[in-house]
Amino acid sequence: MTLVHELDNEGHSLHLLSFDYGQRHARELAYARKCAERLGVTYDEIDLSSIGKLLKGSALTDGTVLVAKGHYAYDTMSATVVPNRNTIMLAVAYGIAVSEGSAAVAIGIHSGDHLLYPDCRPEFIEAFEQMEKTATEQDIQLLVPFLHLSKSEIVTIGENLGVPFQDTWSCYEGGDVHCGLCGTCIERREAFELAGIRDPTVYASTGEPG
Amino acid sequence: MTLVHELDNEGHSLHLLSFDYGQRHARELAYARKCAERLGVTYDEIDLSSIGKLLKGSALTDGTVLVAKGHYAYDTMSATVVPNRNTIMLAVAYGIAVSEGSAAVAIGIHSGDHLLYPDCRPEFIEAFEQMEKTATEQDIQLLVPFLHLSKSEIVTIGENLGVPFQDTWSCYEGGDVHCGLCGTCIERREAFELAGIRDPTVYASTGEPG
Repeated sequence: MTLVHELDNEGHSLHLLSFDYGQRHARELAYARKCAERLGVTYDEIDLSSIGKLLKGSALTDGTVLVAKGHYAYDTMSATVVPNRNTIMLAVAYGIAVSEGSAAVAIGIHSGDHLLYPDCRPEFIEAFEQMEKTATEQDIQLLVPFLHLSKSEIVTIGENLGVPFQDTWSCYEGGDVHCGLCGTCIERREAFELAGIRDPTVYASTGEPG
Repeated sequence: MTLVHELDNEGHSLHLLSFDYGQRHARELAYARKCAERLGVTYDEIDLSSIGKLLKGSALTDGTVLVAKGHYAYDTMSATVVPNRNTIMLAVAYGIAVSEGSAAVAIGIHSGDHLLYPDCRPEFIEAFEQMEKTATEQDIQLLVPFLHLSKSEIVTIGENLGVPFQDTWSCYEGGDVHCGLCGTCIERREAFELAGIRDPTVYASTGEPG
């Protein structure tokens, strides 16, 4: 959401896309819509739920897989990999960009994603942008301003832009408030702490993951 | 559909995917399902209709754009380009392939598609397969056995495999039978003629496009 505020602040005309791929944390969609309303930008929710059901084995889309507690680490959090998720979302965004004559597509990938998710790494970004030149015969840029930034650096940028962090969502569980203990909650808590910025998030627990 | 019969004939274990992207010619989906039942292979229809609405300006998805009559040619048929369509469909197929541990993804692109559709060209296929290696960290092959074949050569292959051509669909119009006059109908008619194979298709008209 910090990405949207940053691009809006830079004066770009935006079309915000969010994706329902059957994730447990569909609550993030409501916050995306609220963000678009706040900034007065076009918003569309892309329904990919028929795909989510087929992307088996991920804790994010498969109700039978548990979301791991604790820090991101390959052995515990690899269950949260939704295969090819960014590829699919970016391909859709590029199709719409061609339709609308957009100059660029942007995605908020950050450095913390690199270890676990291959479709968040710089070499993927480069390969994808090149592939789209052949697919569309156009030179639509792929903007990844946070690619080499940490979550705490992004929190700092967001704070300076006035992002209402209480209206953002990270938790991979489907609860009413952030669980506070899954990998993405732990990283969210640490990001605010490292940035020295007050965290307005309501967490079900702020203890250590068991 | 000839592709599915060919791969089945080669002994591959198949998962057939068809895509509803809001195309006028949704009739092709029913024939895809029938093909899967005939061969006894897994079948899934992917609902991308929420995307189709956003891919504006294509005669295939936008009810306000007319489907051009006559031969494929850049000036008349460019309205049938759905931007990034193959990229989106292949990205979905690769996600499912990773989930299921598949060795390959196949698509029935043929040489007649190259002029008009950039995401049907050999350089796209190569760039896409490379990109997916970075996106998935796996070496899933992209099979395009018809890439350099003409429609009449594909008809010949299909005839030898016993493909029931009366249960296949090409027409871009949404009628009850093939219109016989749109670009893809003209090419279908010519393909059978060139191959010297009886065409079982019912056409509304077999005249020259006016």
